[in-house]
Amino acid sequence: MFRCFSSIRSASGKVGFIGLGNMGGPMAMNLVKKGEMDLLVFDVNQESVDKLASAGATAAAEPAEVAAECDRVVTMLPNSPHVESVYSSLLTTASPGTLFLDCSTIDPAVAQKMALLCAEKRTIFMDCPVSGGVGAATAGTLSFMVGGPSDEMEAAKSVLEFMGAKVFPCGDVGTGQVAKICNNMMLGISMLGISETLNLGNRLGLDPAVLSQIINAASGRCWSSDTYNPVPGVIETVPSSNGYKGGFGTTLMTKDLGLAQDAATASQSPIPLGSIAHQTYRQMSSNPKFADKDFSSAYAFLSEEKLIPDES
Amino acid sequence: MFRCFSSIRSASGKVGFIGLGNMGGPMAMNLVKKGEMDLLVFDVNQESVDKLASAGATAAAEPAEVAAECDRVVTMLPNSPHVESVYSSLLTTASPGTLFLDCSTIDPAVAQKMALLCAEKRTIFMDCPVSGGVGAATAGTLSFMVGGPSDEMEAAKSVLEFMGAKVFPCGDVGTGQVAKICNNMMLGISMLGISETLNLGNRLGLDPAVLSQIINAASGRCWSSDTYNPVPGVIETVPSSNGYKGGFGTTLMTKDLGLAQDAATASQSPIPLGSIAHQTYRQMSSNPKFADKDFSSAYAFLSEEKLIPDES
Amino acid sequence: MFRCFSSIRSASGKVGFIGLGNMGGPMAMNLVKKGEMDLLVFDVNQESVDKLASAGATAAAEPAEVAAECDRVVTMLPNSPHVESVYSSLLTTASPGTLFLDCSTIDPAVAQKMALLCAEKRTIFMDCPVSGGVGAATAGTLSFMVGGPSDEMEAAKSVLEFMGAKVFPCGDVGTGQVAKICNNMMLGISMLGISETLNLGNRLGLDPAVLSQIINAASGRCWSSDTYNPVPGVIETVPSSNGYKGGFGTTLMTKDLGLAQDAATASQSPIPLGSIAHQTYRQMSSNPKFADKDFSSAYAFLSEEKLIPDES
Amino acid sequence: MFRCFSSIRSASGKVGFIGLGNMGGPMAMNLVKKGEMDLLVFDVNQESVDKLASAGATAAAEPAEVAAECDRVVTMLPNSPHVESVYSSLLTTASPGTLFLDCSTIDPAVAQKMALLCAEKRTIFMDCPVSGGVGAATAGTLSFMVGGPSDEMEAAKSVLEFMGAKVFPCGDVGTGQVAKICNNMMLGISMLGISETLNLGNRLGLDPAVLSQIINAASGRCWSSDTYNPVPGVIETVPSSNGYKGGFGTTLMTKDLGLAQDAATASQSPIPLGSIAHQTYRQMSSNPKFADKDFSSAYAFLSEEKLIPDES
Repeated sequence: MFRCFSSIRSASGKVGFIGLGNMGGPMAMNLVKKGEMDLLVFDVNQESVDKLASAGATAAAEPAEVAAECDRVVTMLPNSPHVESVYSSLLTTASPGTLFLDCSTIDPAVAQKMALLCAEKRTIFMDCPVSGGVGAATAGTLSFMVGGPSDEMEAAKSVLEFMGAKVFPCGDVGTGQVAKICNNMMLGISMLGISETLNLGNRLGLDPAVLSQIINAASGRCWSSDTYNPVPGVIETVPSSNGYKGGFGTTLMTKDLGLAQDAATASQSPIPLGSIAHQTYRQMSSNPKFADKDFSSAYAFLSEEKLIPDES
Repeated sequence: MFRCFSSIRSASGKVGFIGLGNMGGPMAMNLVKKGEMDLLVFDVNQESVDKLASAGATAAAEPAEVAAECDRVVTMLPNSPHVESVYSSLLTTASPGTLFLDCSTIDPAVAQKMALLCAEKRTIFMDCPVSGGVGAATAGTLSFMVGGPSDEMEAAKSVLEFMGAKVFPCGDVGTGQVAKICNNMMLGISMLGISETLNLGNRLGLDPAVLSQIINAASGRCWSSDTYNPVPGVIETVPSSNGYKGGFGTTLMTKDLGLAQDAATASQSPIPLGSIAHQTYRQMSSNPKFADKDFSSAYAFLSEEKLIPDES
Repeated sequence: MFRCFSSIRSASGKVGFIGLGNMGGPMAMNLVKKGEMDLLVFDVNQESVDKLASAGATAAAEPAEVAAECDRVVTMLPNSPHVESVYSSLLTTASPGTLFLDCSTIDPAVAQKMALLCAEKRTIFMDCPVSGGVGAATAGTLSFMVGGPSDEMEAAKSVLEFMGAKVFPCGDVGTGQVAKICNNMMLGISMLGISETLNLGNRLGLDPAVLSQIINAASGRCWSSDTYNPVPGVIETVPSSNGYKGGFGTTLMTKDLGLAQDAATASQSPIPLGSIAHQTYRQMSSNPKFADKDFSSAYAFLSEEKLIPDES
Repeated sequence: MFRCFSSIRSASGKVGFIGLGNMGGPMAMNLVKKGEMDLLVFDVNQESVDKLASAGATAAAEPAEVAAECDRVVTMLPNSPHVESVYSSLLTTASPGTLFLDCSTIDPAVAQKMALLCAEKRTIFMDCPVSGGVGAATAGTLSFMVGGPSDEMEAAKSVLEFMGAKVFPCGDVGTGQVAKICNNMMLGISMLGISETLNLGNRLGLDPAVLSQIINAASGRCWSSDTYNPVPGVIETVPSSNGYKGGFGTTLMTKDLGLAQDAATASQSPIPLGSIAHQTYRQMSSNPKFADKDFSSAYAFLSEEKLIPDES
């Protein structure tokens, strides 16, 4: 039934983009610069809009205007309520066959609900959450985890490829979100786990740099030990070696672990470590010393060493 | 003070080996075959002794005889009480300068205690626990994590190199054990974490093989996802694809997590995830369905799917 | 604004009751027998309706009919979706001033949403979840935790008093549910905690009956130790002494812990023990041996003793 | 064999007391004043000794002197190593039949080891840890949990009764300690659980005083909710209403949870909630804001409210 939709769309037509924040801004910029697309953009922040406009994009007055003029629309929004609100506006003007690519990280159940609402208007919704931070968004090297109809995957890729290096088809709509929150739950567990481990070793007289080297050559190896080590000085280029500034914030990790917990409770899946990782990051989030730091500051939290100055 | 010891020892002299079990047997065999060493061995199991004897080793009647004749002695024993018992016998006959290399996995505090007792007799104790299973022991590709005086490290390597591929100097005596239990605690956390994660994804409609592929290319990557995946069929050569038979048993993982917990309690180090991993493996260990299976059966435990037949 | 509503209602008028299950059935019966009320009832199960009818209640054909004829309506339904569905029907016919007393255990956020929908129709919604099981429902000795406008509390009590022994005013609408899920989270924590404790003591050689007696006279005392002890034989009249049959089921406890987890995640409240209690009951719920047993079977789950026959 | 021992002892003979700290001091004082006993005391702190001496006790120069002159000796020491050290001295001079009553809180395994050493000298060791703080020690209303031979229980009571209100016979030697650490593990779980619960309710709009009242009348009731409530102002006479000063310190609770964890690991008993309670109190203990406060400050820790002034 939806098979014919992609053929309706004009590959050379306008592409819409809603949500020009820290991530969305550079993503939209890549569509303009690398994709040479005719972009119609919207954001509540005028400054963000002006930046894109000066690069060649056109500014829309409201989301509904974007949907009225574009048959491919990318959205990049902070959370589920924003997505619900924006799409209720978009769907008032969207033409049948319009392809919506939502790059926000939201509850998979909300993604499925959006897909149903879109289907009622004979439009297509695909969830395409990203992996990679502001740096990858700027460089156009994000990874996209995409859920939605397989016969629209090529159409999705034709837009996403200008913003990222990899596109992972995951399955039905919502599974892009599932992949994202599952990866991030595992990331939270690994980071907290390696922080506990390196702190334990340190208290028992084993240098964290030496222990990291051993673990990286052994079965405890993980991305959080070999690429994003949480102990200051072990890897020079990551946030832990820069006062835990920048990177992926503790509050964002807490948000993603909350989404994982919600999905696990709803699907009756046991997640003993995911739950405790969630609770521990919850405590860090409510502590002003860690709330706005990189999530690898779990090491500083557990070690109780003075790794973060009090005035920060 | 101990500096001169290694020069006393005869590089061509007899080497002792005590503990010829599943791991110790093939390790001793490599000293005979690859190392071409004159080996004096002891074990309570006569069959194990005969096997080594037929390969060229000499059998000792008791541990004290081994210490009386050898200035380098390797021990590979099941747990702390065995180590305490064997060394109380060894030290009755050991000559000053004897080098003891203990490859058992034991409490770091017991290793330090042994080192003190050895020092009273002017002998050297180094803890050298191994990473890698029976296969690596047979192939001579184990990794050794070694704690003890740095000026004896070369002497230790001259024996260990015939049994393993890597030797990691860790620091003072006991830190070899610390490295071992820290790595294995992280391993237990990773394995339980990835099991939770892949089960959660599966219940939400995402194929574990697809999710594993995504995680392996992203920040949730770990040895338990990319090398030893716990979901049957994702990697064909690991225990999960063979009914969780073989590999590293649930009860052994539980033992190591118990050592980590003891060390953490004694050193007042917080290990929230390590504690819950310990408790979860504890529950698996008391369930006959999981107790003798590979530790990756955590996936079967959490998913409650019929991955392990009831009769097993 | 709502102040005048209670005066509109006729104290002698018909009272509606929707949901005549294990709990709702005996509750409605008490309104008829003890309250001598003229009851209009609805349930999808005809047998349940007949039972009430033979006691003097009138049967309605659908929920909307109940709301059309009654200005006081009690609802007792299994979960949030049922409540949402029934009220969407009730509100099509309800007159302004109608008082809805919802005794279901649901998400506090859903209770607040229902209250808003009711307010749009100028009717009153109060959440009145109960404490106590089928026995207390039959005896009319339930406790009600009530959230809603304080000037309607007397009107609520005039109905609830025939079904229960205590009415606790909690605050704004939704706080009745908050009280219920908070109490039950604490109950789940206590029960699991005392089960761990008595099992640990038992393994260390201390008779659970003796330990229970000591704890009951000391600072570890709780309802789960002194009134509902989970070890068979310590208290003869509770489910643990009857093969863990009857009582408050493991799956119901898991549901309530899931509601507590959802509320904690949404309100960003740390609940480390509540999360682990949730995860442990989650595992019990997916095990056929424990799923339909009383929640005190946590002791049997942890002790791994053969307290529940395999055939059960 | 030991049956005749109690008859050897002189009920009117000297009684020894070693360890005159915060708890031991007032306990010894009660033996002098209420028990009218002829007391021979020892402590490393001269001031503590002087206080007892001025009340009528005699000072000994060393522990061995106490054992040489008394056939009943009470010990009250900080931890296992102190106990091991003091008894190694006491046993050099103790006469056969001497009754040792150790009121310290230590590892049950150490109590059993002490009993064996005492038996070798044909003396009796009973473990008698106490419940109740400095107030109860002064008032003579402690509870004693006593492990050891049942035919010595009367002899033990004849001393303990002047220091406490209750004596609970628990079973074989070591079970007194088991009862103590089991009760305190349950206490730690209850306190942390009720703190989570009241904080969750508070964030959801339910007054902690109201919620406490409801829980105290329902199935979530526990000593930590109805007698020692952790929310300031709910009960005026407990530490939470006095800036969490006094009471039972966070570090002491952490010590007891560590003993429970050690005993659980050694006996292979699962304690999921006990482990997380231990880890959470571990984190509190390493935070200067909570380390020296009453253990009910778990509420302040979780709520992140400014319940404890920064300067404290």
